[in-house]
Amino acid sequence: MADAADAVHSLTDEVLSRLQGCTDARFKQVMSSLVTHLHDFVRDVDLTGDEWMQAIQFLTATGQQCTDKRQEFILLSDTLGVSMLVVALAQARAGGRAAGATPATEATVQGPYYWEGAPDRPLGFDIGEGVPGEPALYTGRVTDTEGRPLPGALLDVWSGDGEGNYDMQMADNTTMRARGRFRTDAQGRFWFWSIRPSYYPIPMDGPVGRMIERMGRDPNRPGHIHMMVSADGHVPVTTHLFVADSPYIETDVVFGVRDSLVVPFERHEPGTAVDGRPMRKPYWSAHYDFRLATAAGA
Amino acid sequence: MADAADAVHSLTDEVLSRLQGCTDARFKQVMSSLVTHLHDFVRDVDLTGDEWMQAIQFLTATGQQCTDKRQEFILLSDTLGVSMLVVALAQARAGGRAAGATPATEATVQGPYYWEGAPDRPLGFDIGEGVPGEPALYTGRVTDTEGRPLPGALLDVWSGDGEGNYDMQMADNTTMRARGRFRTDAQGRFWFWSIRPSYYPIPMDGPVGRMIERMGRDPNRPGHIHMMVSADGHVPVTTHLFVADSPYIETDVVFGVRDSLVVPFERHEPGTAVDGRPMRKPYWSAHYDFRLATAAGA
Ligand SMILES: [Fe+2]
Ligand SMILES: [Fe+2]
Repeated sequence: MADAADAVHSLTDEVLSRLQGCTDARFKQVMSSLVTHLHDFVRDVDLTGDEWMQAIQFLTATGQQCTDKRQEFILLSDTLGVSMLVVALAQARAGGRAAGATPATEATVQGPYYWEGAPDRPLGFDIGEGVPGEPALYTGRVTDTEGRPLPGALLDVWSGDGEGNYDMQMADNTTMRARGRFRTDAQGRFWFWSIRPSYYPIPMDGPVGRMIERMGRDPNRPGHIHMMVSADGHVPVTTHLFVADSPYIETDVVFGVRDSLVVPFERHEPGTAVDGRPMRKPYWSAHYDFRLATAAGA
Repeated sequence: MADAADAVHSLTDEVLSRLQGCTDARFKQVMSSLVTHLHDFVRDVDLTGDEWMQAIQFLTATGQQCTDKRQEFILLSDTLGVSMLVVALAQARAGGRAAGATPATEATVQGPYYWEGAPDRPLGFDIGEGVPGEPALYTGRVTDTEGRPLPGALLDVWSGDGEGNYDMQMADNTTMRARGRFRTDAQGRFWFWSIRPSYYPIPMDGPVGRMIERMGRDPNRPGHIHMMVSADGHVPVTTHLFVADSPYIETDVVFGVRDSLVVPFERHEPGTAVDGRPMRKPYWSAHYDFRLATAAGA
């Protein structure tokens, strides 16, 4: 109940004092910090009523753009670097690795196109069958951070096609495409086929797209394939492999690129691929070894 | 493209650097400040992936709760003190008053129940006819900050009823109730009838209600009547009058109470009211003089 001139500065404490009755200590901490930083932002920019109303309308439109196949708030979080920050904090928190061990594979953003329940596929299966794009063979191993193979590790893989589109964005968005789950063999190895993924723009027809345009930013992500890699007793990692020579590697609109995840794609002429598959057209190959940290208490 | 350990700290600069191409200087300033404060918040609380997902779901549900009659994001802004902060900043920005003049009437939050296009009513009209609640006569003047009357000033008035409900919350939410627009007379005076408004809780059946509960806060606003007061050549003010002896004056859930807006409501026995209206039951009266600042350049 301070007067108007004081209110600009006293309001924050007034809001914080109302959290006295909050019995959830963590929620109290998070909300107190949120209120403090949010008020600081509003004061720092001396936000006008018109700008505030634009923000209300933007947030409302962002919520109303969401469906079970499109998550515009995750896209907002991604494009403001918040998702990647949360990912980096989680990996820093998981922390400690064995002395002399190499670090675990770096995590990156999950993005909006994960679709739970991709079909289990045998090693060597081609999840890119019928998908536009040039074929690519993915090979590698899953090990712990000391290089010991993890047999039966799970790779849950999803990818856009060679033209930059995900199945969820298709007119028929009920059919999975370029998705599959693979288990490593007794030596911790995996191999499967898909296509060489293309760069693609994030959906630009919604509120986040309009924000990106107004920010003067490029809307593209460099070519990448997504995977969640997990194994019993180990910390799962959600990550991508990035196509080394893809455009937009330096300006990924969601800030997901890590140097350690950039993988050269090697071009091959028609012939028999290393897994024995006869290829009548040129194809690509990419090799990557995933390392998982040991879970606490495992 | 820093490595994971560094990313926690380098990401913010990476995001800010992508605003180089933004040609709208004000938008660039606002978004840069937003990103900085938002990242600071996420780092300060070491936000977990689960908490981030809760935030995404909360924001999505908040957007999807909005209709043309309910604005859950404004409610969120109100209950976090952001709306009142924006109001206080706007009034501080409008700033300067004539030496020796009293300050303009304090502004407070607009709230979610403004409905444009309330009917024009003659002075003395009862907008509380048929509305549950005890009758109340509102009288006063609209002047400039030097006390000169402003004839033809507009009061756009809206109120909940004596049970704490707004028309928009009724099953039939297409009929306006307890709303009206009045013009001051040649002496700058206004008078009209409505009911004595009750305290009321904000809508608690949505995401913001669940947040208020989890914060351990009381969900009520003290009794108040809303008005937007405007006159040619003057700075309009959106404000409330608060019922002095209402519960929750000290804990308004949207932080809207200003001392200068708290008005005693006087109780009267049946008889002839000061405007000449014969009253067969007890009624209340409240008096308030609104002061409007001169608009820049007027
Ligand atoms: Fe992707
Ligand atoms: Fe109200």
